[in-house]
Amino acid sequence: MTNSKFAVAQSGGPTAAINATLLGVIEGALETGGEILGAVNGIKGVINNDFLNLNDTFSDPKNRELLKNTPGSYLGSCRIKLPDPETDTEVYERIFDVFKENGIDKFVYIGGNDSMDTVDKLSRYAKINNIDVSVVGAPKTIDNDLAGTDHTPGFGSAARFVASSVKEVARDSGVYAEKSITIIEIMGRNAGWLTAASALARSENSTAPHLIYLPERPISREKIIEDVRNCPETNIIIAVSEGIRDENGEYYCSQTTQSHDIFGHAQLAGCAKVVEGFLKEEFGYKMRSIELNVLQRCGGHFTSLTDLNESQHIGKRAAHAAIKGRTGVVMAFERTGDYVCTVIENNVADVANKERKVPDEFISENSNDVTDAFMKYARPLILGDVQVITEDGVPKHITR
Amino acid sequence: MTNSKFAVAQSGGPTAAINATLLGVIEGALETGGEILGAVNGIKGVINNDFLNLNDTFSDPKNRELLKNTPGSYLGSCRIKLPDPETDTEVYERIFDVFKENGIDKFVYIGGNDSMDTVDKLSRYAKINNIDVSVVGAPKTIDNDLAGTDHTPGFGSAARFVASSVKEVARDSGVYAEKSITIIEIMGRNAGWLTAASALARSENSTAPHLIYLPERPISREKIIEDVRNCPETNIIIAVSEGIRDENGEYYCSQTTQSHDIFGHAQLAGCAKVVEGFLKEEFGYKMRSIELNVLQRCGGHFTSLTDLNESQHIGKRAAHAAIKGRTGVVMAFERTGDYVCTVIENNVADVANKERKVPDEFISENSNDVTDAFMKYARPLILGDVQVITEDGVPKHITR
Repeated sequence: MTNSKFAVAQSGGPTAAINATLLGVIEGALETGGEILGAVNGIKGVINNDFLNLNDTFSDPKNRELLKNTPGSYLGSCRIKLPDPETDTEVYERIFDVFKENGIDKFVYIGGNDSMDTVDKLSRYAKINNIDVSVVGAPKTIDNDLAGTDHTPGFGSAARFVASSVKEVARDSGVYAEKSITIIEIMGRNAGWLTAASALARSENSTAPHLIYLPERPISREKIIEDVRNCPETNIIIAVSEGIRDENGEYYCSQTTQSHDIFGHAQLAGCAKVVEGFLKEEFGYKMRSIELNVLQRCGGHFTSLTDLNESQHIGKRAAHAAIKGRTGVVMAFERTGDYVCTVIENNVADVANKERKVPDEFISENSNDVTDAFMKYARPLILGDVQVITEDGVPKHITR
Repeated sequence: MTNSKFAVAQSGGPTAAINATLLGVIEGALETGGEILGAVNGIKGVINNDFLNLNDTFSDPKNRELLKNTPGSYLGSCRIKLPDPETDTEVYERIFDVFKENGIDKFVYIGGNDSMDTVDKLSRYAKINNIDVSVVGAPKTIDNDLAGTDHTPGFGSAARFVASSVKEVARDSGVYAEKSITIIEIMGRNAGWLTAASALARSENSTAPHLIYLPERPISREKIIEDVRNCPETNIIIAVSEGIRDENGEYYCSQTTQSHDIFGHAQLAGCAKVVEGFLKEEFGYKMRSIELNVLQRCGGHFTSLTDLNESQHIGKRAAHAAIKGRTGVVMAFERTGDYVCTVIENNVADVANKERKVPDEFISENSNDVTDAFMKYARPLILGDVQVITEDGVPKHITR
């Protein structure tokens, strides 16, 4: 009843590296000789008192290696926004009752911006009520849009998948001698980090993508048409973020479909189709639009070793912080020199619910490309080859 | 003017393995100490007298290794249907004049069904006019629908990409506790081989895909709805071929868009969206449709080593056949025992313009899955891990 115990949970959208962070947390906990429970489906698992004992499964090094390389969220996820802990306490009473019942005094929550909101609220409630539970956040998101960190765990692998896919699509579109335009739609509602990362596809003998449009810069149809007209390539590749907007601030995709999730974020789809539509009308020749879909976040077969290692490390550091009794904090990355990445700690209240966009210095003046400074920033994050663990010709995964 | 020389060209849609076959042809030619020219953009390159000398570039083993691992068509491609050589001879006169001018007496054409039609017509014209040029076909297609061969070069890598992607999408869709349906659209107009290959995603701890629909079996909306209702999974994954049709033989995608390419093939897109539409209406819960797009054919970062090696080998054997003076033939694979793959020769006239569909023994009786016999057939084709050659975190390619 009163053992000192870890609990860990995962939240938000899956990534290719979030399980590496889970592994780090588990390793950090196992080092102390303590017990670690995994809540199934995020904070919902805590509310439902639905835990897995992780000690046995992950004392086996083979399972640890598999976990590091399995995309998605091993423990499952949820999308829940907790109420204000000062005014609506019912759910918090339940959560901390469950913690108490299971002897849990350290909780690491792995997730994105909305999950850091949960870390903030849980730690505030605990402080207000003098409950001795450390609540620590470990970040993840392919979107790279969290405040207070150089980059986010999961971004490097998604960026590598995006850049590699764009390069391969360029090999595909380049086979015919006839003029063509291929529009590749990449995830990113308000922040264009992942779309910017498409520029990492370029090499000495591969020039795609030729135009890059980010949500940070409104862009008119006329400007896109002019950019295409000025592009000397036969087979033009255009990378567009799902959230690009026109000069009036209207989403391009809003012409096709738009709804909202429970956090009020617009759910966007189809801007590439819209761009394809008016370019087809203008230029007439062969067009294709491609949505890189969920594989850009859950593609575990071409991850960045740098990302997986860093994601694992930040999880371990989150566990260490919880062991030290820190609470209401979230781990972050700090970069020094050409590329040394260390883990720092932020007050979660300072960074939750903030969105870090691509800064001006990373976007070209004419708003259709990234700068060398961006390339220098992003390149180290996608480096390092991972030997995928396969079985029968497909990646081998661990599931709960 | 009268040297004995090879020419080689690539045609049709790109694959991840067609350059491995090109490498095989080059190696076969280089063994003879002869010269080999590559026609740029298929038979059009011959007509335009547009050749690259391949000897220098590919005497370097590093370039050979890169070529084997570069997706797309190194020499470029075209989609040209030649006229009847008995009645419309102009283009043939031009082609064989160019061959003569360059001293070319061996021509290997790497391509799919439409390209084998070209091999047939060129060799017929040469025979009719007593021209001593060997014309040999080397097959390729991700669709696996060529007649007279156990399987096609390029299919194994596409099948591996499809199966791995489906498995990763299952990790992604499985993170939430709420019911969901994900519909994955896979290439295949009339033959469902690649969609069938999605079943290779299954393993001990991963059951997706849960339903598989192929163009070989008409399927009504009502049957799909019933299948979904009977599926016990929380997060259902459905693999659909782009060419699935209803009980009246109507394409599902015809409700969105349909046009024809120059060979009269229907260009299909969007059946997953249509299926999503009526399932959403019926079941209401979360739906997502995903198009695996061109990455399934040009994804060079997760290829099958078996496929790349076999593709290289069949190219070499095509060169050997040309050296032996064979003409009007196309190479093919024959399988013996549990899995030994050898190269055989077919008369191109016997196999061109024929389409090999998935046979009944490979489709489950209730038309929503594949059989164990299919799994046994397909599994060997996707085996073998390739260490991708990367540079700066993305695959390194060779381009002309």
